[in-house]
Amino acid sequence: MDAKQTIEALGRAARAAEGRLATATGAQRDAALHHAAAGIRDAAAELQAANAEDLETARDMDLSDAMIDRLTLTDKRIRAMATALEQIAAQVDPVGETIAGYNRPNGLRIEKRRVPIGVVGIIFESRPNVTADAGGLCIKSGNACILRGGKEALRSNLAIAEVLGDALEKAGLPRQAVTMIGTTDRAIVPAMATAEGLIDVIIPRGGHGLIRAVVQAATLPVIKHYNGNCHVYVHAAADLPMAQAIILNAKCQRPGVCNAAETLLVDAAVAEAFLPGAAKALLKAGVQLRGCERTCGLVDAAMAATDEDWDSEYLDLILAIRVVDGLEEAIDHINAHGSRHTDAIVTADVAAAERFVAAVDASSVMVNASTRFADGGEYGLGAEIGISTDKLHARGPMGAADLTTYKWIVTGNGHIRQ
Amino acid sequence: MDAKQTIEALGRAARAAEGRLATATGAQRDAALHHAAAGIRDAAAELQAANAEDLETARDMDLSDAMIDRLTLTDKRIRAMATALEQIAAQVDPVGETIAGYNRPNGLRIEKRRVPIGVVGIIFESRPNVTADAGGLCIKSGNACILRGGKEALRSNLAIAEVLGDALEKAGLPRQAVTMIGTTDRAIVPAMATAEGLIDVIIPRGGHGLIRAVVQAATLPVIKHYNGNCHVYVHAAADLPMAQAIILNAKCQRPGVCNAAETLLVDAAVAEAFLPGAAKALLKAGVQLRGCERTCGLVDAAMAATDEDWDSEYLDLILAIRVVDGLEEAIDHINAHGSRHTDAIVTADVAAAERFVAAVDASSVMVNASTRFADGGEYGLGAEIGISTDKLHARGPMGAADLTTYKWIVTGNGHIRQ
Repeated sequence: MDAKQTIEALGRAARAAEGRLATATGAQRDAALHHAAAGIRDAAAELQAANAEDLETARDMDLSDAMIDRLTLTDKRIRAMATALEQIAAQVDPVGETIAGYNRPNGLRIEKRRVPIGVVGIIFESRPNVTADAGGLCIKSGNACILRGGKEALRSNLAIAEVLGDALEKAGLPRQAVTMIGTTDRAIVPAMATAEGLIDVIIPRGGHGLIRAVVQAATLPVIKHYNGNCHVYVHAAADLPMAQAIILNAKCQRPGVCNAAETLLVDAAVAEAFLPGAAKALLKAGVQLRGCERTCGLVDAAMAATDEDWDSEYLDLILAIRVVDGLEEAIDHINAHGSRHTDAIVTADVAAAERFVAAVDASSVMVNASTRFADGGEYGLGAEIGISTDKLHARGPMGAADLTTYKWIVTGNGHIRQ
Repeated sequence: MDAKQTIEALGRAARAAEGRLATATGAQRDAALHHAAAGIRDAAAELQAANAEDLETARDMDLSDAMIDRLTLTDKRIRAMATALEQIAAQVDPVGETIAGYNRPNGLRIEKRRVPIGVVGIIFESRPNVTADAGGLCIKSGNACILRGGKEALRSNLAIAEVLGDALEKAGLPRQAVTMIGTTDRAIVPAMATAEGLIDVIIPRGGHGLIRAVVQAATLPVIKHYNGNCHVYVHAAADLPMAQAIILNAKCQRPGVCNAAETLLVDAAVAEAFLPGAAKALLKAGVQLRGCERTCGLVDAAMAATDEDWDSEYLDLILAIRVVDGLEEAIDHINAHGSRHTDAIVTADVAAAERFVAAVDASSVMVNASTRFADGGEYGLGAEIGISTDKLHARGPMGAADLTTYKWIVTGNGHIRQ
């Protein structure tokens, strides 16, 4: 079977499973998640055996230590996968929620009700725990899913998907609701991205190259998660010790993730008072500083930033710093160089905060808080399927409810249109 | 300039205008709409002169009478355009609406607030009033838009867009917020559909060919409006006179539109009691009937339906009729052959209605009401930008609020992540 035929066969099976999952009760879907959590714990040895085979191949493939680390299923990670499934089960059921409901003057009752999207295609790399997280969120939201992981994690992914399939069956649901693709054929990605009628949406999770490949090939809707070039702007009316704590946290608490700060903008009015001390603390935390001319005049240890720095997502202990002449220049800089992910202002001034919130075009805008809070868990969504940098359908952290669409339900009593 | 350069230049101008529109007050946007309505009335003679040139070219192009009719700007249609703009102004402002707002245990305040999408690309055919409707809905929702109409309506569209531009300026807003493309270069469509960073979403309005061309070329999100193969299912527990009134209305009230019914499914339990009388009424209304074998056994005047009929959107006074053995067969037929637009059940039985609503995969599901109600105006959304047959972002009738996305606004008091 070529890739197109494979997707056609798996897509038909998923489509058939979809209806049964969509009309199952919440209790049945939650039961499947609890069976899956128990199954993951019980199958720890089998999962690690499959993972050991992946790791052996990975070493032959000369993968980096970081990649091998991400691939490894430790005892702790297996327990974390099981716990995550239980947390997903504990969330409020998004399916069936009435988003809007009202009567029309002619007596028609109109209701907008959340329903599963249908079949969700997820294309991801590396970490095998995505199989459990993504599969679990799809079960919770009543969707069937077709998963395509990286070839380096194939055996681990298949073993986890097997556990999810068994759990679905124990709950009286079709195991085809979670399908892990078992071939490493590269033509699978474009075949998934064009499987109209079989898959309803594609969610790529991974590096820029993977996402571009999906977007270029796709005729299906794609929800993307591009990079995060996040800013912290220290306004003239900022509480300066607060601002220092926020930039330290936003840059250093976990520099390798998309909601870490990459650029610090400092209002000229407070640059002299703020920058030398903040720079000292950042340097002490091991951060390399790259500043504009005015920054370099205030901070000896800063090297000169180039134009490229303003557009960089370092994902590392490096920070670009620019002194700006007021709020509007900060907003213009962010809208010109940011990635529309997450940007923060530190200020005590209500009007400045309101203007920043209104004018900065980003999925999350923080006022007096670290950019690191842009996260499904921190927003109370539970496990997240990703952080959308798109504006359509879902923006920012996506939880189970973002894997739903809605249906208009119109109830009359023999109403006909005049 | 080639198409790509044209879109680049127009896209940059629209992007610059977007921010000013997004942060304008609702009163300013509504003022622009009222100026536009007055401007359309005042410019009636100029609009008709431009339209006369289009009509002259159209006659040379040998367009059908129906297309020429759709292209013609009569006095009545000009007045209707102006009224529609005033009705859009009268709608509740979707911008700034808080969709969700709550406090987290750590004291962070989380708010999800509606904001404009940004720059909306709309590609349409024929009717010049779409320029006013689509431009008006984008102004209302704080979006800039780039419009591409059919070449047969170019002069009319440009004249209408000129009025909208003047109205924006009178309200202190940039005229570039509504841009009508002035070239008929066919390469404009793919250039728009791939203008990442300049346009945020593409909405094609027109025939299947236009929508396919956009989907195939697009790397941007597309919201589609495919066809409507709508069903009316007469359940065993239906009130039969009600069922007859509904199918007559759904088929005949305006057969050329996407929410008209194309297939009637009749439960075997009531086929004998229902079909002969209903068929008589349908035939009297000029409807051609194409039935399954059992239908033809009950209705002499029905010709035999072929497999193709079940998948057809006639947009004409033709109706396919099939007798089904119960609710589940009706649901299976609809999910196999329907276009996920609008389907109706006629029944007095609560359980049957609930099952139908849950299991039929369509943007609108009607209970004891005509499919013809699937419409933005009928749902109380005001003017509609289209009826989405997609499941992502917006489904079914789309109003001004569907031209918005949201922003997460997170307010702390120096919160940092542990």
